Amino acid sequence: MGLDYSHIKVVGFDADDTLWVNETYFREAEEKFAELLEHYETKNKIDQELFKVEMNNLELYGFGIKGFMLSMIESAMELSNNNVSQETINKILEIGKFMISRPVELLDGVEEVLATLEKKYRLIVLTKGDLLDQERKLDRSGLSAYFHHVEVLSDKKEVNYQNLLDHLEIEVGEFLMVGNSLKSDVIPILNIGAAAVHVPFHTTWAHEVVPEDEHPNGHLTLNSLKDLLKYLN
Amino acid sequence: MGLDYSHIKVVGFDADDTLWVNETYFREAEEKFAELLEHYETKNKIDQELFKVEMNNLELYGFGIKGFMLSMIESAMELSNNNVSQETINKILEIGKFMISRPVELLDGVEEVLATLEKKYRLIVLTKGDLLDQERKLDRSGLSAYFHHVEVLSDKKEVNYQNLLDHLEIEVGEFLMVGNSLKSDVIPILNIGAAAVHVPFHTTWAHEVVPEDEHPNGHLTLNSLKDLLKYLN
Repeated sequence: MGLDYSHIKVVGFDADDTLWVNETYFREAEEKFAELLEHYETKNKIDQELFKVEMNNLELYGFGIKGFMLSMIESAMELSNNNVSQETINKILEIGKFMISRPVELLDGVEEVLATLEKKYRLIVLTKGDLLDQERKLDRSGLSAYFHHVEVLSDKKEVNYQNLLDHLEIEVGEFLMVGNSLKSDVIPILNIGAAAVHVPFHTTWAHEVVPEDEHPNGHLTLNSLKDLLKYLN
Repeated sequence: MGLDYSHIKVVGFDADDTLWVNETYFREAEEKFAELLEHYETKNKIDQELFKVEMNNLELYGFGIKGFMLSMIESAMELSNNNVSQETINKILEIGKFMISRPVELLDGVEEVLATLEKKYRLIVLTKGDLLDQERKLDRSGLSAYFHHVEVLSDKKEVNYQNLLDHLEIEVGEFLMVGNSLKSDVIPILNIGAAAVHVPFHTTWAHEVVPEDEHPNGHLTLNSLKDLLKYLN
């Protein structure tokens, strides 16, 4: 397929950290969480413990803020040897509620790119995470009208993409996926034979990091979503 | 439309308390939660407070077990005036994790009904709640193969149903919805002009209860899903 995008008819966009800011808010929440527990452990150890608990709970809770809140509470218990104060638990609940209700901050050039591409391509959103959170963010983003279809997936593995393309009757050779995560938006897409554009975000959640020797090839990497207009027009 | 189902081509099934047990598990969790807090308040007051917190959080958290867990923790703080023990918080997390990982218990006659109806109708699942929880339950239920499509909605209002029927290109006059909730499975369906069958479950969450003077009419009520075979054949 290379970089010949002349057969592309449908462009799929990841949402978090591709259309709008997300990971930054998780990092800010982790900072606040570490401050709440600084009597008990070092910042480094707190980060590690929280990530470990999140990974242990991933199969049970999936992706999203509510699972993150529950993992913060569980980590606070473990890090403090069950001595964390009730006040701290309340503050953890507040951190999470603040995350859920934050306004949506669009990334640079998103509206321009969507407004241009929608004239020639069918645009869809393919995101993972919490259904209600993602629907709310799309609604608040003001971008809904650009998209023919929005799909919130419980995960972004090859089988999830393949099932969705089948369901939407999209030929794999006509599909291009754009996103910030090599693991979720690029590798599975290349593996099913579709095209992928990687637009890295400055911050990547440890769970999404791909070791360098497993980096894929055959995809286009762009510094900014705006550069997409140079390749799709 | 009456009870003439000769035009029906697609049958939608609610999942929780229609295909498998769900509300019973929430009631059991509420019982355990009340036992944990019995030093602080009466059972009645604990139930009321938890429901109040759940309703306050519904817009933020949506439906599902993770939001329920977070509301239990918040209620425990309020009911105990922030004196609840760390041990109790851990036990609340355990209650929720147990709920998420429970096996799926099919209701009476479900397999027989689906196996019979799939020969003549397109069957779909329309459920609300947490995406990952619902996918997991469907997977564990062993029922996936009976369904042409599975949709997890963030809510079951008229607009959610109408959008989905449009998306799946289903004519409203060809659609019949089967579920246990008058509020979510019957009233919005009748309002968009489709047909509805109500199969009450013995337990209904207070949020789903419809006052008697607002009960709909024009739908079929059945004691058991098995009786559906008398009307659709």
